[in-house]
Amino acid sequence: MNFHQYNYTEPFQLENGQQLENLTIAYHTAGTLNPEKNNVIWVCHALTANSDVFDWWAGLFGENDLFNPKDHFIICANVIGSNYGSTNPLSINPITNQPYYNDFPVVTIKDYANAHQLLADHLGIESIHLLIGGSLGGQQALEFTLLNKIKVDNLALLATNAVHSPWGIAFNESQRLAIEADATFYENKPDGGTNGLIAARTIAMLSYRTYEIYEESQKDDNQVYDYFKASSYQKYQGQKLANRFNAYSYWILSKAMDSQNIARSRKSLVDSLSQIKSNTIVIGVSSDILFPTTEQKFIAAHIPNAKYVEIDSIFGHDGFLVELEELNRVLKPFV
Amino acid sequence: MNFHQYNYTEPFQLENGQQLENLTIAYHTAGTLNPEKNNVIWVCHALTANSDVFDWWAGLFGENDLFNPKDHFIICANVIGSNYGSTNPLSINPITNQPYYNDFPVVTIKDYANAHQLLADHLGIESIHLLIGGSLGGQQALEFTLLNKIKVDNLALLATNAVHSPWGIAFNESQRLAIEADATFYENKPDGGTNGLIAARTIAMLSYRTYEIYEESQKDDNQVYDYFKASSYQKYQGQKLANRFNAYSYWILSKAMDSQNIARSRKSLVDSLSQIKSNTIVIGVSSDILFPTTEQKFIAAHIPNAKYVEIDSIFGHDGFLVELEELNRVLKPFV
Repeated sequence: MNFHQYNYTEPFQLENGQQLENLTIAYHTAGTLNPEKNNVIWVCHALTANSDVFDWWAGLFGENDLFNPKDHFIICANVIGSNYGSTNPLSINPITNQPYYNDFPVVTIKDYANAHQLLADHLGIESIHLLIGGSLGGQQALEFTLLNKIKVDNLALLATNAVHSPWGIAFNESQRLAIEADATFYENKPDGGTNGLIAARTIAMLSYRTYEIYEESQKDDNQVYDYFKASSYQKYQGQKLANRFNAYSYWILSKAMDSQNIARSRKSLVDSLSQIKSNTIVIGVSSDILFPTTEQKFIAAHIPNAKYVEIDSIFGHDGFLVELEELNRVLKPFV
Repeated sequence: MNFHQYNYTEPFQLENGQQLENLTIAYHTAGTLNPEKNNVIWVCHALTANSDVFDWWAGLFGENDLFNPKDHFIICANVIGSNYGSTNPLSINPITNQPYYNDFPVVTIKDYANAHQLLADHLGIESIHLLIGGSLGGQQALEFTLLNKIKVDNLALLATNAVHSPWGIAFNESQRLAIEADATFYENKPDGGTNGLIAARTIAMLSYRTYEIYEESQKDDNQVYDYFKASSYQKYQGQKLANRFNAYSYWILSKAMDSQNIARSRKSLVDSLSQIKSNTIVIGVSSDILFPTTEQKFIAAHIPNAKYVEIDSIFGHDGFLVELEELNRVLKPFV
C-alpha cells in the first residue's frame, strides 16, 4: 500500500472542547478510485495497528486477496494519537514547540469519525462501498456511519460494540495504571513509561486471548516450579509491542476506546442504530471475553438491515484478525 | 479468633533448595480441641487474606455460623510470605540483619503444606475433621492432604485446581510486571512498589470478577466520555489493597500460586488425586474465569470419594467468598 499524510491547516475541534492545531492524518491507499466512484473499501484499524492493512490483515486484504487493489480503492487512516504517522503525543505541539507527551488531549471515537470525514472530503469520496473495522476499528466505523455525511453502502462490524462496557474500561484502566506505575512515564521522553507499557500489553493479551489458547500453547511439563512458559510469553508479547509503540500513544488510544458510546449527544443507543441504512454484517467471535457476542448481537438486532454472524473460535477477541478462512467466507458477499 | 505465632527454631527447607531460618508461622484459632480430638476444622486462606477466618469468611465461619467455636476447633495458618504475621519479605533476614525484600526466596504450595504440617505437629493434631480452602487455599488443602502425614476425614476444595494453568500464570505474570514497572520496588523499602501493587490488584480484580458484575455495578449514563465509574472502581480497589498489603509479599504469593502442580515430584496428576481417601466435595463457580469449573470437575473426577457441586453465580472467582447461602447449603453435611 502507499503511505500518505494529509495536513489539515485549520484547528481541529475535539469533543472535549480542546483543539488540535496542524492535524496530520496518515493513511495508506491501494488501488484507484474507479470512474463510477463506487469501489471504495474503507478500513478502520484496531488499537495498536497502523494504516497498512495489507500488513496486519493479509489473507483478507492484499494483491490477490478478497479485497484487492485490482477491484477496489482501499483506504485506511491512522487514528489520532497513534504513532504511525498521524498527530500523536510525540508530535510537536505548535504552541510549546515541544512534543505533547502527557499534555496530549483526550480524543474520542467521535473525534476519529470527524477525522475520517476530513480525509474523505480531501480525497473527494462521497460514498463507500464497504466500511469495515474490528474492535476499535468497528467502533470508528459505527461513528463514521452515524456522522451521516457519506453514503455507506455496506458496513462490516467485527468484534466491536456500540458502547464500551464497564468491564472493557476496567481492563483499559488497569493498563493505564500499569503505565502510570512506571514513573518514567512522567519524565516526558520518547521512551517514558516503557516498562509500564510492557506490563499493559500483557494485560491486554489476556483480554484478547482465552484460557484455552494459553493452555494449548504455553503448557509446561509437570516438574517445573518456576520460569513458566506463560511468564516468558507475557514478557515477550509486552516487549514486542514496546519495540513498535510508545506509552503515551497507548494511553491515549485506550482512552479513546473507553469513550465509545454512540448514544452520547444522541437520543439513545437503539435509536442511533435504527438510523443506519447500510447493508450491515455484524461479526462476533464465540470466545471473545473483551467484546462478548452479546454486544454484537445487540448491534445487529437494532440496525434495520443487519445480520449477525458468529465465528466459532477459541482465539477470543483476536479471532477477528486470525480466523481468515471464516472471514473470507462471510465477507465474500460484500466484495 | 485468637492470634498466635509459632517460632520454628530449625532451618525450614524450601522446595527450591534454599532454607528459611527462624520460620514464624502466624495462625488464628477459635474453640478448643475436644477430648476425642475429632473436631478440627483447618482452613487454608486465599492470596491476600489473613488467618482470621471469622473476618473474611463471616457467614460461614463465626460464633453462630455453620462452623463455630462451640462445636469446632478452628485453625487457620497464615502462609509464608504473607504480611499477616508469618515470615515474609519485610521480616528480618537473620543472615543480613536486614529485611529480605527482593531477596525473599520463592516459596511453593508444597512449602505451604510442609509449614501446615509443622504447625499441626506443634499443636498435637493428628486428624482433621474438615480441611477446607478456596483458590490458593484449595491448592494448599490438596498438597496438605497429599503429604499424607495427617488424617483428613473430609476435604472441601473450592474454586481451585490441581495444577495452575498457563492462563492463571499469565495473569500473575502481568501483575508482577506491573509491580516491577514501578522502580521503587527495587529500592527495598516497606512501601516499595506501591503504585505497581495498585495496578496489580486491579488486574487481579478482573480475574476475580466478571463482565456481568462490572456491567451491573459500574455502568455510567450515556453522556460521559471520561472519568468512568469503572476506572474509579479499579483505582479504589487497588488502593484498598495497597493500604493493607505490600508489593514484596504480593509478588511472592503470586509465585506460590503459579507453583501449584500436585504431579511435581509424584507420578502424575491423576495418580496423585486417586490416592486421596478423604470424603471430598469440590465446589466450582459457574462464571469463574480464573479457575474455570473444568479444573474442579477434573479434581472431582479423579478423587475416589468426591462429588462436584457447581454454584451458579455471576460473581466469578469471588463467588467462593460471596455466595454464602449456597456455601452453607452445600457444606452443611460436613459439619
